[in-house]
Amino acid sequence: MSKLQLSNDGNIKHLLTTEGLGRDLIHKIFDLAESFLNVGNREIKNVPFLRGKTVCNLFFENSTRTRTTFEIAAKRLSADVINLDIDSSSQSKGESIFDTVDNLISMGSDIFVIRHPEPGMPELIAKHVGDNVHIINAGDGNHAHPTQGLLDAFTIKKFKDRFDNLSVAIVGDIKHSRVARSEIHALSTLGVPDIRLVGPSEFMPTDMGQLDLAIFENMENGLKNVDVIMMLRIQKERMIGSIIPEDEKYSERFGLRKKHLLVAKKDTIIMHPGPMNRGVEIDSDVADSKQSVILAQVTFGIAIRMAVMSMLIGKNI
Amino acid sequence: MSKLQLSNDGNIKHLLTTEGLGRDLIHKIFDLAESFLNVGNREIKNVPFLRGKTVCNLFFENSTRTRTTFEIAAKRLSADVINLDIDSSSQSKGESIFDTVDNLISMGSDIFVIRHPEPGMPELIAKHVGDNVHIINAGDGNHAHPTQGLLDAFTIKKFKDRFDNLSVAIVGDIKHSRVARSEIHALSTLGVPDIRLVGPSEFMPTDMGQLDLAIFENMENGLKNVDVIMMLRIQKERMIGSIIPEDEKYSERFGLRKKHLLVAKKDTIIMHPGPMNRGVEIDSDVADSKQSVILAQVTFGIAIRMAVMSMLIGKNI
Amino acid sequence: MSKLQLSNDGNIKHLLTTEGLGRDLIHKIFDLAESFLNVGNREIKNVPFLRGKTVCNLFFENSTRTRTTFEIAAKRLSADVINLDIDSSSQSKGESIFDTVDNLISMGSDIFVIRHPEPGMPELIAKHVGDNVHIINAGDGNHAHPTQGLLDAFTIKKFKDRFDNLSVAIVGDIKHSRVARSEIHALSTLGVPDIRLVGPSEFMPTDMGQLDLAIFENMENGLKNVDVIMMLRIQKERMIGSIIPEDEKYSERFGLRKKHLLVAKKDTIIMHPGPMNRGVEIDSDVADSKQSVILAQVTFGIAIRMAVMSMLIGKNI
Repeated sequence: MSKLQLSNDGNIKHLLTTEGLGRDLIHKIFDLAESFLNVGNREIKNVPFLRGKTVCNLFFENSTRTRTTFEIAAKRLSADVINLDIDSSSQSKGESIFDTVDNLISMGSDIFVIRHPEPGMPELIAKHVGDNVHIINAGDGNHAHPTQGLLDAFTIKKFKDRFDNLSVAIVGDIKHSRVARSEIHALSTLGVPDIRLVGPSEFMPTDMGQLDLAIFENMENGLKNVDVIMMLRIQKERMIGSIIPEDEKYSERFGLRKKHLLVAKKDTIIMHPGPMNRGVEIDSDVADSKQSVILAQVTFGIAIRMAVMSMLIGKNI
Repeated sequence: MSKLQLSNDGNIKHLLTTEGLGRDLIHKIFDLAESFLNVGNREIKNVPFLRGKTVCNLFFENSTRTRTTFEIAAKRLSADVINLDIDSSSQSKGESIFDTVDNLISMGSDIFVIRHPEPGMPELIAKHVGDNVHIINAGDGNHAHPTQGLLDAFTIKKFKDRFDNLSVAIVGDIKHSRVARSEIHALSTLGVPDIRLVGPSEFMPTDMGQLDLAIFENMENGLKNVDVIMMLRIQKERMIGSIIPEDEKYSERFGLRKKHLLVAKKDTIIMHPGPMNRGVEIDSDVADSKQSVILAQVTFGIAIRMAVMSMLIGKNI
Repeated sequence: MSKLQLSNDGNIKHLLTTEGLGRDLIHKIFDLAESFLNVGNREIKNVPFLRGKTVCNLFFENSTRTRTTFEIAAKRLSADVINLDIDSSSQSKGESIFDTVDNLISMGSDIFVIRHPEPGMPELIAKHVGDNVHIINAGDGNHAHPTQGLLDAFTIKKFKDRFDNLSVAIVGDIKHSRVARSEIHALSTLGVPDIRLVGPSEFMPTDMGQLDLAIFENMENGLKNVDVIMMLRIQKERMIGSIIPEDEKYSERFGLRKKHLLVAKKDTIIMHPGPMNRGVEIDSDVADSKQSVILAQVTFGIAIRMAVMSMLIGKNI
């Protein structure tokens, strides 16, 4: 997997997963993102890095929010952006996804941002395309969402400066979460010594045995002395008919409340990938507290996506 | 309300309603719009006033036409434009509108153009956001549609030059019309001495008692010697099951026909905010007559929206 | 028809059909497209020909693929692009198509790219608009799809260099195909001496008697010694309940298979306007073979559309 992502000169060629991304490479992305953060504070926020390039947002799963972050990042780099929500167009006419991609490449697309319900589809597409075309995985089933993982790690770096002394708790349905997977791989590579997964046992992953992860079924224990609390979004649609049938029950056991902050470190930060279900996985007074860095994550997400797109196209400043 | 719209230096900070906007401020917007009209006639119609700024069209009610006018105005100012029709995305995932707005601000949105079915929602959002973010109300329920009110007043200025000697008739369902409300407040502030409301009594507003408005239930009387006839769009969907059940009946009593022009001034102009129901509230031979300035309204609307966006961002030429 | 398309100085004013377009004019478009192809290979693919111009994609029939080609072409020319899929907006509010167009012109639209299910609608609109507004027919019922016809002819020129010694076979439902009609008129004007139509007799056109076309109901005969095979897309939706009820039967008789290439010239090229129904009108091993120029068509299509838009606006380099 990691080989497919990297070009011969060690740069990223595609971004499919945070798994196997080297620590140096991640820090290189962070450095570039940092420079774009400064751009974001200027009067004119646009830079010409991707002028004349075409970024194609190819979403086989509806997500206005995520698409918008990539759209804004690409436009700030002066790219031309094409948004394609595929449901009713080519796919409904029976064309294969590879034909769709080949056509868009022939039209001149340089970068594809792909969201697809099927795990591994962005990788399949990356294998299919030629050398001058770059794939960003914007979420594939429960597999990976690498820009989210990177922006979350970048957020931690911005607030905590270093990784090698941190305790980080990830709370929720880790098993079905591409966000959690991408976070765990990024933080693990960056050297976080204490990564804790908190949630009901049915929500714990079974495929990450090689990593040193601590598992907690109790919030108070799991959050004890942590520096960072990363909440996951509860997929309500997934809860229906599942083993944990009711919002209230889940919320009571694993929803983040003010009282939980008492067991964590005093300067712990609270993260959430959004959109939040207030009152379900996170209480409003926590989400809006001073310790919450949830909106900072969004701002950093634009900078991270600008950095990734620039590096894919070979512009490292 | 007016305080929320104005910054300390007397400039507009948000545009939520024409009510309470000062006469000088409106003329300032008109002057800027005039300069953009000239730009619109040049070979290259774009200017760099909003380069590097992001305008977010946040429409909670479908209106391709209105959104397009803001999109064109913003692009002509060189802004990056994000279109969000909210139905199926964040809102359907249960996120609050404030969270949606906060996220888009964190992504770097500078101006929000908001249409919402609920009166007052753009004001609530304006109260919520920080100093560097600006809200334009693009229609909130039956409350206000200030850019429409301003462009209509600007159209009158272009054709009649002054306001203090005019008779203006507004015809239709005033009660439920945000367009009419915004027109009435703008024209009243600009000094139109004779504003007439024409329509069935059930369609007359009950909340504008403080203004000096003449009410007519008869077209011939209402249009006698007027300089300007402003027709409103009939909301067919609203007519169903209402007190005036049939198109024909309403059209017979309050549809604008050629014969009505005989009672108005010879050089009266005819206006309509569009889209028109030809044969219902306006006959085709009137809509397409020389006295019709309906398409000029559209052109002026782009200039007015460019002027408002520029002023919000602090660019007054 | 041809008069409506041409301005007094012999330039194109609208592009409604390939029928009646002069040979010189087509070659002028090809020359300009050729220069844009070179631009497409540069680091920065954009040129400022349409800076400050607004291109409005007005699609009354859903086609993400075709719209995207025009969107990319327009953006590469630095135009502002407005995408309007009309279903639910103005049309549903009962506004006429002419009112919609007039409004968009008043907003400053310079070029309309129009797809409409009704044959002749783009021509009606071209008759309606003023001198500074230009219409491109992007497909009107079974009438015409002129940019597709031109890009197909351009593709042949790129691979075969000249037209006056070619045998070209068009295979499929010619009768209902706007693509086929536009191809036939373009190739006929360009001097292709041998144009063959291949398909069941029910799919042969009845309105092209003035042209010298050979008709074949048998693939082996129709493809004998041809230089170019142009496959048409089978409209599955049109097949239902038609005289040729089953995919398999049609595919067996008229689907392009490897064996058919044996009867054609050795260097025959294979074309398809996309999206393909692999295994129906074309086998995958043929579509992906070295002789297939299907993706080249897509690349050339961007260049042709850039050329047409530039010429409409009076920029011929």
